[in-house]
Amino acid sequence: MAKTLEFFFDFTSPYAYLASSQVEALAERTGATLRYRPFLLGAVFKATGNSPPLLVPAKKVHMLKDLGRWTEHYGLPPFSLPPTFPFRSLEANRLALVAIEAGKGRNFVARTYRAGFVDHADLGDRAVLGRLAAEVGLNPEEALTKIETPAVKEALKANTDEAVARGAFGAPAFFVGEELFIGNDRLPFVERALRDL
Amino acid sequence: MAKTLEFFFDFTSPYAYLASSQVEALAERTGATLRYRPFLLGAVFKATGNSPPLLVPAKKVHMLKDLGRWTEHYGLPPFSLPPTFPFRSLEANRLALVAIEAGKGRNFVARTYRAGFVDHADLGDRAVLGRLAAEVGLNPEEALTKIETPAVKEALKANTDEAVARGAFGAPAFFVGEELFIGNDRLPFVERALRDL
Repeated sequence: MAKTLEFFFDFTSPYAYLASSQVEALAERTGATLRYRPFLLGAVFKATGNSPPLLVPAKKVHMLKDLGRWTEHYGLPPFSLPPTFPFRSLEANRLALVAIEAGKGRNFVARTYRAGFVDHADLGDRAVLGRLAAEVGLNPEEALTKIETPAVKEALKANTDEAVARGAFGAPAFFVGEELFIGNDRLPFVERALRDL
Repeated sequence: MAKTLEFFFDFTSPYAYLASSQVEALAERTGATLRYRPFLLGAVFKATGNSPPLLVPAKKVHMLKDLGRWTEHYGLPPFSLPPTFPFRSLEANRLALVAIEAGKGRNFVARTYRAGFVDHADLGDRAVLGRLAAEVGLNPEEALTKIETPAVKEALKANTDEAVARGAFGAPAFFVGEELFIGNDRLPFVERALRDL
């Protein structure tokens, strides 16, 4: 039976960035097919009554330390919050859908998270997005035109609505079948669920 | 140099219950002295602007699954939410201070969490508290009188104020020196910090 791991992410989520660095290896170890599913975290918060952790000052201080602990643990470059954070990610999330459809999802997601959280490029900037599209082999003009089409806009909204309907309230959100796991820190449970299938 | 792990907890926190099942072994593995420090989670939420996760319905559903995954992972009895949850824990937290002062902290904390989250005893009930006090070798009448004294009331408030001043916003909260870690799920980072000392 085919195992699938669905990974719901938004490029503005630093914890989804952390998870993005682990999911490919996890899927390989467990023999699962990984589905990249961009969604809109802001809309998820709004729909569920949840709120971003950064709104509580003490949480923000702890979160910054915590993100640094995770990047050290994973062997990623040291974490610092991008000056543009929380940057606009709507267009980047839509562009991920275009990249996924073209079979370039894995590469696009990795490069875009790295651009946002390591290089501190502004993912709300269309020039940055055009460059990222080109780097994964997409025609940047075509790709940036596509993200303005109703089909792509609706697809991102549909992912968001679906995630909320299935119980998600934050990012990253993982599904193994209908088992939901929220948070980079729950990846060991995700892995156990995939092994138990 | 003496290593100390401070464990701030409130008996109403299920994640602190999970952590309480692990901290003794962790302290032993790392050669750290464990300090049990009850505090008032409600006052921490109020002081920091944080809010209980259960207020967001989707979070509550996920949290109940998550707690079950953790109890399975730790080999604890299967988790179910006590019918009295969120039960009153003020007196139980104060009683912990009395037990700690009498050198019965470890035993009292373990038994009280078990009573609350496994046996579903109502920790807001003084008869339950008297029984728990007796079980760890305290005189129940004396202990229940002590928790009404200004000294004990102030000590619990002082723990709470201190935790907030040092950056805590939830439970469980761990300090290794002034390094703060929030959450049962951060125990591996707590352990790394203690090993690195």
